[in-house]
Amino acid sequence: MQFWFTEEQSKGLRISVQVERVVEKRRTPYQEAVVSETSDFGRMLTLDDVIQTTERDEFAYHEMICHVPMCSHPNPDRVLVVGGGDGGAVREVLKHPVQAVDLVEIDEAVISLSKEHLPSISSGLADPRVRVIIGDGIEFVAGSRDAYDVIIVDSTDPVGPAQGLFERGFFERVRRALREGGLFAAQTGSPFYSAELVARVYRDLRSVFPKAGLYLGCVPTYPGGLWVFSIGSVGGEFTSPLPGRVVKGTKYYDEAVHSAAFVLPPFVRRLIDGDR
Amino acid sequence: MQFWFTEEQSKGLRISVQVERVVEKRRTPYQEAVVSETSDFGRMLTLDDVIQTTERDEFAYHEMICHVPMCSHPNPDRVLVVGGGDGGAVREVLKHPVQAVDLVEIDEAVISLSKEHLPSISSGLADPRVRVIIGDGIEFVAGSRDAYDVIIVDSTDPVGPAQGLFERGFFERVRRALREGGLFAAQTGSPFYSAELVARVYRDLRSVFPKAGLYLGCVPTYPGGLWVFSIGSVGGEFTSPLPGRVVKGTKYYDEAVHSAAFVLPPFVRRLIDGDR
Repeated sequence: MQFWFTEEQSKGLRISVQVERVVEKRRTPYQEAVVSETSDFGRMLTLDDVIQTTERDEFAYHEMICHVPMCSHPNPDRVLVVGGGDGGAVREVLKHPVQAVDLVEIDEAVISLSKEHLPSISSGLADPRVRVIIGDGIEFVAGSRDAYDVIIVDSTDPVGPAQGLFERGFFERVRRALREGGLFAAQTGSPFYSAELVARVYRDLRSVFPKAGLYLGCVPTYPGGLWVFSIGSVGGEFTSPLPGRVVKGTKYYDEAVHSAAFVLPPFVRRLIDGDR
Repeated sequence: MQFWFTEEQSKGLRISVQVERVVEKRRTPYQEAVVSETSDFGRMLTLDDVIQTTERDEFAYHEMICHVPMCSHPNPDRVLVVGGGDGGAVREVLKHPVQAVDLVEIDEAVISLSKEHLPSISSGLADPRVRVIIGDGIEFVAGSRDAYDVIIVDSTDPVGPAQGLFERGFFERVRRALREGGLFAAQTGSPFYSAELVARVYRDLRSVFPKAGLYLGCVPTYPGGLWVFSIGSVGGEFTSPLPGRVVKGTKYYDEAVHSAAFVLPPFVRRLIDGDR
């Protein structure tokens, strides 16, 4: 007998992943969190039946959401990750000589499930430079001033608890929470299936940050494969890494990929053309 | 009642597309060819239950397989498309001032189904510069000498009738069929799910052509989204378009996308590193 997990990825499109067994399932105050063993993607974390990460392809997402802002900042000492309870973003941030990383995750269960069942992703959470805060990312950011060099929003899709992370008011708070020269990066969905979201987030970022941009990465288990990341900067450029910045042990990111990720196909560029 | 078409995209991964109705289904000597009306991707052509093209996302694939070799050739007068019976590649080739385009498709039904039910894709097939040959692409290429400036292999996956199109002997015949300065491009599968194929095709191309390379495009309804194209050249470079070459009316391809497509993430580069 075969078991398949099926995700409704957009209207009229589903992806199904064969599952060998459910490793652990938890109903939390926020969502249903499940770690399962798949037959072809290693272990997989789903939240409310949406794939968050799989051991096989998480590298593409986590490397791109982290290293683009991190390699654009001259000295990213203090970093905040909002969401990202699986720890993958923190693991990548720790490939840089940072002083402190704060992770604010609303759902403690995501962290404990990942620590227990996804060690290759969550390993960095045990690093002494990492402080884990269980709480609301929006409130946490609102309470922070001139505190971070890089803020990374590694959130679920803009429904439910994550909705506020895609709104202009949040971006304004992020800007205040950044130190001089700070950078903000976030996942912003698919240019095929979330075109309106991509356009709106870019417009809002443009109005809040002196510099804003979009870049692309490819994450096989996300709808359509092609994924948009948004970036906002309090000052510096971000379309190529700073000279001499090398990140070791990456599988998706490198210096050339960083720059190429900002080359948008015309159908993506047109989503934001009115706002540039 | 909902109807879903499901494709087994790799071991343990399926994609499902909601189908409103089957427009036409034909059992041909080679395969089962179906055009259906989907709820979110427009019309879709499947061959033996594998998605070949949808009206919504075909632009990415057809633009990338054509314009990269076409814009790398100083004067692509004579072009051969092997496979590609839906006409999408021919439509893109005709955006250049070509003199003649030959299309060799083994399965006449693919052409007639596309002409009848996928007019936005197949429109170019009616152009007077286009000659349609129903026949075996491998034999046709073997019978051609110094005949084409660009040869594009727009094939199904390397099983069944298309298998020979991924073999070294075929690449040797392609090289002989190319004129001086000629270029060859082909679809080569997913770097996630067909890593061995990608590595082998690159190795074979390197041994047959003076210059060979891989480039990437993103096609949402193909497994993993990220897709590899192979390119071989009898002489000239291909990693950026020739100066002044502009293709109008594209949605995925442009000059910057051409160059960025050759930037391979480390996990893709490693597939071929031993062979460079």
